[in-house]
Amino acid sequence: MSGLHAWAPDGIPEVRPGDDLAALVLEACAGGADLRDGDVVAVTSKVVSKAEGRIRTGDREEAIEEESVRVVARRGATRIVRHRLGLTMAAAGVDASNVEPGTIVLLPLDPDATAQALRRDLLARGGVNVAVIVTDTAGRAWREGQTDIAIGAAGLLVAEDFAGRTDGYGNPLAVTLPAVADELAGTAELVQGKLGGRPVAVVRGRGDLVLPPGEDGPGARALVRAEGGDLFGWGAREAVVRALAGDDADRLPFGSPAPLAELQHAVGRVAGRSRAMSSTLSLTFDDDPGRVELRLPGDADRTAVAAVCFAHGWRIRSWGAAQDGAGSDVVCALSPVTT
Amino acid sequence: MSGLHAWAPDGIPEVRPGDDLAALVLEACAGGADLRDGDVVAVTSKVVSKAEGRIRTGDREEAIEEESVRVVARRGATRIVRHRLGLTMAAAGVDASNVEPGTIVLLPLDPDATAQALRRDLLARGGVNVAVIVTDTAGRAWREGQTDIAIGAAGLLVAEDFAGRTDGYGNPLAVTLPAVADELAGTAELVQGKLGGRPVAVVRGRGDLVLPPGEDGPGARALVRAEGGDLFGWGAREAVVRALAGDDADRLPFGSPAPLAELQHAVGRVAGRSRAMSSTLSLTFDDDPGRVELRLPGDADRTAVAAVCFAHGWRIRSWGAAQDGAGSDVVCALSPVTT
Repeated sequence: MSGLHAWAPDGIPEVRPGDDLAALVLEACAGGADLRDGDVVAVTSKVVSKAEGRIRTGDREEAIEEESVRVVARRGATRIVRHRLGLTMAAAGVDASNVEPGTIVLLPLDPDATAQALRRDLLARGGVNVAVIVTDTAGRAWREGQTDIAIGAAGLLVAEDFAGRTDGYGNPLAVTLPAVADELAGTAELVQGKLGGRPVAVVRGRGDLVLPPGEDGPGARALVRAEGGDLFGWGAREAVVRALAGDDADRLPFGSPAPLAELQHAVGRVAGRSRAMSSTLSLTFDDDPGRVELRLPGDADRTAVAAVCFAHGWRIRSWGAAQDGAGSDVVCALSPVTT
Repeated sequence: MSGLHAWAPDGIPEVRPGDDLAALVLEACAGGADLRDGDVVAVTSKVVSKAEGRIRTGDREEAIEEESVRVVARRGATRIVRHRLGLTMAAAGVDASNVEPGTIVLLPLDPDATAQALRRDLLARGGVNVAVIVTDTAGRAWREGQTDIAIGAAGLLVAEDFAGRTDGYGNPLAVTLPAVADELAGTAELVQGKLGGRPVAVVRGRGDLVLPPGEDGPGARALVRAEGGDLFGWGAREAVVRALAGDDADRLPFGSPAPLAELQHAVGRVAGRSRAMSSTLSLTFDDDPGRVELRLPGDADRTAVAAVCFAHGWRIRSWGAAQDGAGSDVVCALSPVTT
């Protein structure tokens, strides 16, 4: 039997800018006596931000703007942005709960670094080799409600990589990569709750995920999908607007240039709508090195074709008549949109 | 101090179609002696599917197709679909791991119903009032790796609703809705692992989330965001293609008709690209009941405007010259695209 135990100590006082996080954790854990090698210590980002002075008064909207790299999606009052840490979050993680009324809390400047420092301090002053995660509450695409995730981590294998391993039947586990740091954050939330003033939690029982002293591992940053690596870099409505607006600066969230077969399929979907051409649709690519051409019937809708190319990471450099005299066909020269 | 304990019993035999899930859980838990009122019993969807005979040989791609309502996004070999249960998942949850080579496993037919039946059986035969969740492993937008989520639940408050409550400072917790069923599923995964043959887990310590006997609660289905209620109903590339293809059947994932202010802003973004009109852009809406009109310069790109309207839940019924003689302006009549 494999077991896990998690708890959240009570009695942690209000945290103020400049407070010593390690002292706070150690005090809540009987000076360290309640901690063991291999434990995972979870601290909410709220309390990290308070200790690090990431609190301010003033305009919440302005703070969201400052914390954001770009808007991902917007509907009504909801604004989902990509935060400078790479996190995609409503309101850039700027929060006005569990804080003095009239003040707002920003996410920590560098939660991986905070986790590293806290891990180091707990080893030096508490004598225990624990992993540390900094947690925050995040909404999800497709599912209601929020779960806590790890936005900072140190001394932890943040994901268990099964690539190259096989199950008990010999089947390969090619894409299995449990994001255990996030599951640990969720476990911590279950014992912390939102209202009990319990910003610290300890999870015991997965010491196999905790690295030896001196090794901090990749950090929670490794769980952030790179800009352009995601299929959901824009909300559905925003994607349409961005592709049709066609600013190069807006391209990156659509990802790197699509393989030509995928581009061809997508262009076919919209070019096929053109009134007279559905029966004569013919798309050919000449992908000699450095030369990618798309051949279309002359009445293809150029706005639609250009927007679809753009969303697939390709830009149309020029339109011209087909040189082989085959009726009204046009040929456009494509180049990948690089960053 | 608030504490949580989770474990996953070893020694559960291979599950075959027709096997009795309650007997399996009770046997693994010392005939029920290891279970208490208020525990949460987590069972992987894999083992539920095996017991319910949701295994087959044959084509995996065909199975994915059958299990899907629609494709959400596709890139290379990755196909993310909306499953008939409402779940957005890679490969529709069709899985070929932890199963006899050559066979594939589909998600359970009705995991909420399975959870209800198991909860009932554990009460009747084990004498314990436990909540039951059926878990599955799911990827996420924006983050690497997967976490386990609850795709079935019975007897559980699946989300803690803080709407209308205030924190210790008196701040309202308007949108706070921890999806505790998913956090419990993640906790279960931490003790089950992927390779140990431990499809059952017990989580003890959140009895406050477990409902009285006879009450099953809303089920995990309540955590599925309704079709059209999500900002990420299409992948970014797919959104562009769908909006320009403009089939009505493809509209729903874009959501219900946007407020006119949002539509106006979006149309302005693409209409502003028109060569000669950026200085004369003028969008006006006449939203008398039953009559919504959009006024644009005559050289606005109609393909772009129509696609953006479509993505915002509006269809252009007709284009016409402005009747007040103001130059080359055009007016288009809009109607909401209803389902």
